[in-house]
Amino acid sequence: MAKSVEFSIFRGSENGEIIPTTIRRTLQPREVLVEISHAGLCGKDRAFRHQPIALGHEGAGFVRDVGAAVHRFKSGDKVGFGWVQKICGHCDYCVGGKDQYCECRQEYGSDQDNGGAFATHAVWDERMLFHLPASLEPEHAAPLMGGGATAWTALTASDMRPGDRVGVQGIGGTGHMAIQFASALGYEVVALSTNADKRDEAISLGAKEFHLLKDGAPVDRCAQVKHLLWFGTEAPDLTRALSLVACDGTLHLLASYDPLPLPVDALVQRGIKIQGSAAASRQEIRQMLRFVSLHGIRPIIISWPMTKDGIEAGFKVMEEGKMRYRGVLVSQRYLMGKPVVERLGRAD
Amino acid sequence: MAKSVEFSIFRGSENGEIIPTTIRRTLQPREVLVEISHAGLCGKDRAFRHQPIALGHEGAGFVRDVGAAVHRFKSGDKVGFGWVQKICGHCDYCVGGKDQYCECRQEYGSDQDNGGAFATHAVWDERMLFHLPASLEPEHAAPLMGGGATAWTALTASDMRPGDRVGVQGIGGTGHMAIQFASALGYEVVALSTNADKRDEAISLGAKEFHLLKDGAPVDRCAQVKHLLWFGTEAPDLTRALSLVACDGTLHLLASYDPLPLPVDALVQRGIKIQGSAAASRQEIRQMLRFVSLHGIRPIIISWPMTKDGIEAGFKVMEEGKMRYRGVLVSQRYLMGKPVVERLGRAD
Repeated sequence: MAKSVEFSIFRGSENGEIIPTTIRRTLQPREVLVEISHAGLCGKDRAFRHQPIALGHEGAGFVRDVGAAVHRFKSGDKVGFGWVQKICGHCDYCVGGKDQYCECRQEYGSDQDNGGAFATHAVWDERMLFHLPASLEPEHAAPLMGGGATAWTALTASDMRPGDRVGVQGIGGTGHMAIQFASALGYEVVALSTNADKRDEAISLGAKEFHLLKDGAPVDRCAQVKHLLWFGTEAPDLTRALSLVACDGTLHLLASYDPLPLPVDALVQRGIKIQGSAAASRQEIRQMLRFVSLHGIRPIIISWPMTKDGIEAGFKVMEEGKMRYRGVLVSQRYLMGKPVVERLGRAD
Repeated sequence: MAKSVEFSIFRGSENGEIIPTTIRRTLQPREVLVEISHAGLCGKDRAFRHQPIALGHEGAGFVRDVGAAVHRFKSGDKVGFGWVQKICGHCDYCVGGKDQYCECRQEYGSDQDNGGAFATHAVWDERMLFHLPASLEPEHAAPLMGGGATAWTALTASDMRPGDRVGVQGIGGTGHMAIQFASALGYEVVALSTNADKRDEAISLGAKEFHLLKDGAPVDRCAQVKHLLWFGTEAPDLTRALSLVACDGTLHLLASYDPLPLPVDALVQRGIKIQGSAAASRQEIRQMLRFVSLHGIRPIIISWPMTKDGIEAGFKVMEEGKMRYRGVLVSQRYLMGKPVVERLGRAD
């Protein structure tokens, strides 16, 4: 007989108020009940708070119950989950290591729209859950499951090679993880930001150069990069962004913007690619977790309690542009003291 | 003592008239005098006819003299040359097999702007000339040196793999060579054209499917392709073009258009690349010539005499959209009879 579970989630609403809601359902045979200890606060969540859907797509926590047919997880396991839409597991994309592009987006994943990481618990199909490495604390795992995975995929799924000169534009929640990954992957990392205050931190995270951007162009001379990752929340001026990219190089767009004018001539004459990417495959997320564990990479986080007030306080700091660098909501059960500022960075 | 050479070239002019001009110069130690037997007539030349520069960038012919230090060529050698800007031979691009992107574009190449293939002769630095395979007639070599090289590079310099489903949009001077290359390279070739009359020829050249395009979209169902090469002279509607490309696939833009609206969201959510390319490296052109020789690939050509009248007649057919598929100008010395229509296609 299917087990009954009950838990609370936070939903968005039209006016942006955060609404707690109780979920009651049965645990299906291949489903896992996860008690969420931490959830990352991503820029995307700001848009979702105005929709009546479950918030949060970067979760970490511990398995508390499993369905009868679950065989990869048991109670007590430390797990993470990200914002992967449901997948079928058997289309060409699913069997080809690119399941983030599953053609039908059905069968397994989470029943919660958007994952539902701002919650006491979540129910996931075991095939979409990730074991966390023993050395990785759940508070650092949560931001990796979304933003970290986006950065990892952009840095590993193209023709980027160790030794390549790689630019990271936008040193925020995702960009500061990208710098660490890129450095450990053997790239020559060039950080670009509109904020001069981020210079020292960018260098300490692994960048070999820092260039201040003004109106989309560096204020000092910056040799072209083979790959430029654009993490900024503001859309790039493609002509200026492409002028930073070497011939035969790539501009990576990692966030959705309104349509932008594409200077075709520059692309064609200089043999440049514009590569879009966002979601990571399950394989890529597993690789990222192993890499993080091997290299002691950690996001720099600021924490708030996972309550209505905590979520709203986190959004406020994000809106003020003061997040350094990723907000993490901490379950009341794990929270010790008031907003805890942790600045850990690389563990080495 | 440097040798003196004299020859005639055809230049463009502001009003589009084709102007014969005599060139007198000395042959430098590493230079080669080529007697041009054939020149390809490319869409790009239509724009250049309104500029006072040497016309033609797809040439083939025979070596008639060499400078004192030339060691790779001797009189009588069958050679080809394309529209590669001068290169330095020692920058990162030049030593890295991507000399088409040379940083300084100096030192060696042709002294004629634009190559100067519409001419009795051309002088080239030996390092930028190409030996033609014994089995390749110069009339078929000429179109390969420009359009053929563009198609070859687009088909071989990316992550395209044998077995991939590859779309070729625009079955013209370059596209009809791309279909032959793509088929012989082991791709599953899908031809797309606004002209239903080209169906049979596309299939005979190696396409496994043909889809008629109307307003930038296929009129029948067309399964998405991994790579879509856009050869059409009309700019694509990027939203429609990207809808033909599978997730994790690539749209290749091979011609310069005015800036186009880029639907960033489609690119990011579906993990798609837009890849620009135009010029080929020396290495790529040599590989193409070997491949053409191995597989008996030939452009389908229509010939005119290499005279003012012949050039103008060729442009007229091009402007009427009736070129099937590449115009070739033939030196008077090689011409036999009036406009010769050759329809050879694949030699197998």
